[in-house]
Amino acid sequence: MSLIVQKYGGSSVADAESIKRVAKRIVETRKAGHDVVVAVSAMGDTTDELIDLANEVTPMPDPREMDMLLTTGERISMALLAMAIKSLGMDARSYTGSQAGMITDARHGAARIVDVTPVRLREALDEGAIVIVAGFQGFNRDTKDITTLGRGGSDTTAVALAAALGADVCEIYTDVDGIFTADPRVVPKAHKIDVVTSEEMLELAAAGAKVLYIRAVEYARRHGVTLHVRSSFNNNEGTWVVASYDDVNDGENKGVTVEEPIITGVAGDLSEAKITVVGVPDVPGKAAEIFTVVASAGANIDMIVQNVSLAATGRTDISFTLPKSDGEKALTALRSSQPDIGFESLQYDDQIGKLALVGAGMRTSAGVSALLFRSLSDAGINIEMISTSEIRISVVTRADTLQEAMRVVHTAFGLDGEAEAIVYAGTGR
Amino acid sequence: MSLIVQKYGGSSVADAESIKRVAKRIVETRKAGHDVVVAVSAMGDTTDELIDLANEVTPMPDPREMDMLLTTGERISMALLAMAIKSLGMDARSYTGSQAGMITDARHGAARIVDVTPVRLREALDEGAIVIVAGFQGFNRDTKDITTLGRGGSDTTAVALAAALGADVCEIYTDVDGIFTADPRVVPKAHKIDVVTSEEMLELAAAGAKVLYIRAVEYARRHGVTLHVRSSFNNNEGTWVVASYDDVNDGENKGVTVEEPIITGVAGDLSEAKITVVGVPDVPGKAAEIFTVVASAGANIDMIVQNVSLAATGRTDISFTLPKSDGEKALTALRSSQPDIGFESLQYDDQIGKLALVGAGMRTSAGVSALLFRSLSDAGINIEMISTSEIRISVVTRADTLQEAMRVVHTAFGLDGEAEAIVYAGTGR
Repeated sequence: MSLIVQKYGGSSVADAESIKRVAKRIVETRKAGHDVVVAVSAMGDTTDELIDLANEVTPMPDPREMDMLLTTGERISMALLAMAIKSLGMDARSYTGSQAGMITDARHGAARIVDVTPVRLREALDEGAIVIVAGFQGFNRDTKDITTLGRGGSDTTAVALAAALGADVCEIYTDVDGIFTADPRVVPKAHKIDVVTSEEMLELAAAGAKVLYIRAVEYARRHGVTLHVRSSFNNNEGTWVVASYDDVNDGENKGVTVEEPIITGVAGDLSEAKITVVGVPDVPGKAAEIFTVVASAGANIDMIVQNVSLAATGRTDISFTLPKSDGEKALTALRSSQPDIGFESLQYDDQIGKLALVGAGMRTSAGVSALLFRSLSDAGINIEMISTSEIRISVVTRADTLQEAMRVVHTAFGLDGEAEAIVYAGTGR
Repeated sequence: MSLIVQKYGGSSVADAESIKRVAKRIVETRKAGHDVVVAVSAMGDTTDELIDLANEVTPMPDPREMDMLLTTGERISMALLAMAIKSLGMDARSYTGSQAGMITDARHGAARIVDVTPVRLREALDEGAIVIVAGFQGFNRDTKDITTLGRGGSDTTAVALAAALGADVCEIYTDVDGIFTADPRVVPKAHKIDVVTSEEMLELAAAGAKVLYIRAVEYARRHGVTLHVRSSFNNNEGTWVVASYDDVNDGENKGVTVEEPIITGVAGDLSEAKITVVGVPDVPGKAAEIFTVVASAGANIDMIVQNVSLAATGRTDISFTLPKSDGEKALTALRSSQPDIGFESLQYDDQIGKLALVGAGMRTSAGVSALLFRSLSDAGINIEMISTSEIRISVVTRADTLQEAMRVVHTAFGLDGEAEAIVYAGTGR
């Protein structure tokens, strides 16, 4: 018998009506003959409301108590969902993260899963029950405290359960039809992707795509879990996230066969800023010093560009991007280290936009960067920084040109609407 | 070192401001040198709101899931309270019913406490922390499910913790100054009682007094826990609920000495209805049949009156009172049993009021019932049923005369304002 894990986000269970609708879908899945395990988020904006309530009490809420507080959101929705399913005549039971065997470390607010021992869930499934699990939470064996998993926690819960239970698929339900080639609100001609590899999905998520959290995608990739991202408001096929395109062509996911596309999607990110360390002495070890200082301050460094030093000055500039929210602490740390590092000055630019072009086929296709740079330059958009990985090219532009840049690139690579991609090639394997 | 258990009800923790105020009070208690354990209810009307939410999903919510849902209310308030105390610089930790060792049977919605093993609480207290426990909830060892304790559950949690930890006192904080000689909204001249025995308190609570739940009072009585019912909005002494007046006069509760009053208070109850089974064959066993039928239907019988049978007819009438909410099922059960029992007809009267006069000294004082009947008859109020226990006399009147009856009786027994009670007598022990 097959086992399906389903995850429903906050917007899918925002009120009593939505919960009843989701319950019907779950019951239909069970009636189709599958064992069903559901990970559910808190209703609507509950988590944010609880955070606000805590901040009304104190500006610095204790982390252990914050986790105790926030985990009530998922408990409420899981209990209501189980009630709704039972009222439709099928057995359903809700389980907290602790009861479900979601064991984590002790880092409140951002706990890492260290083990998943779903003993009670298996027993319930063996008795034919539908299992509902509170997303976003776990349990630490040493302190015996409840923990939360941080952003994207419910996706991670679902994927972790799917891995531990050997599920055939992990369906992630959301309020859009799947993963799109670009954010449809920015690029109206974006279309839904049928299949994407988890490697590509990682790059898209890292580059700004919001539907799936990096952590959950990485967990899925590492444990070989197939994801299906789809809408909770209709029955359409969504986006399958698989280990590789070969899985698809071997017929493992029914009905979808694709040639490996060169370009899968375009992501945009306006949340970063750029820091330029000006006039760094061109001496071995200086770059290492700079990034050690910044990382020790807790800032997350993204793209790095070091310009060629001018022989005349013996100095060079080093630029890097980081989240705007980390800007202050990075600057503070650098200023304190100026005597040691010996740079001339610092520049801070929070008007940058980062565009990422992602595609598994990029590995084997030569003309991608050329087409990228040409299409942007034809549109009069200046590229300020470039960074690449095997399956991704990122460029930095001015923030106010980012969205236009996304549309231009989307069109240039044939991702618009239903049009055949100009640069599609065979898999060659 | 002394240990104080405090219980704060929903109105005391209705919002962030109230929570901060309660946190200050708790910290002051700790700074005065006491170990402090706090049982807390859900904020404001949270429990009722969660019940409404469940009923939006289904009219018959599953009991196990209902308990999972409702227990989130206390978890929210306990976490916020612990956060507030920590922000004032003192260590505080919140514990769920399960973590606090509140072991119950498996009756969801009305679980009975079978054991209290507060191991983690003792450890926390030994480390100097203030302990916050979610009221109203427990844990069943067999099913490993979370349970709720039913109405008055948070009071019961507090008293059970006080008993298990050997607390010196269990302070019940509420939004009134203590237990009053009568409901001040009905009897404006009612005053706060300084000391009352748990036996009297049981009668008052059973008779309609709303501040303390019967169950918690009974648990306190059985385990020898001293209660102090007071306001969370000021620092005034409230009402001490003790095992006997001797405890008080032995100086165990500082500052309060009283002679044993004959009458402690007057309670009124409009929630009952009266059923009269007319024309019951005057044959041994008929009364037993009637009450067996009614009890099997799940109705709670209160007062019973059987009139003397008329030799001529060989039949008698039996009247009894019960909660209005049980009226329908009792009538249905009786109608079905009419052929077997052989009564002539049923009368249902939901316009009754029940007045109870409570006082430990009633045992040794002869004139109480006489004064009761005379004062009511002087006021033109008719008594329809009478029922007594050692320390309580209950009478049934018309519902619309109940409140006036309460005022009349309150005055007749000298309970008004600060006036010396006319019938106070020495303890005689």
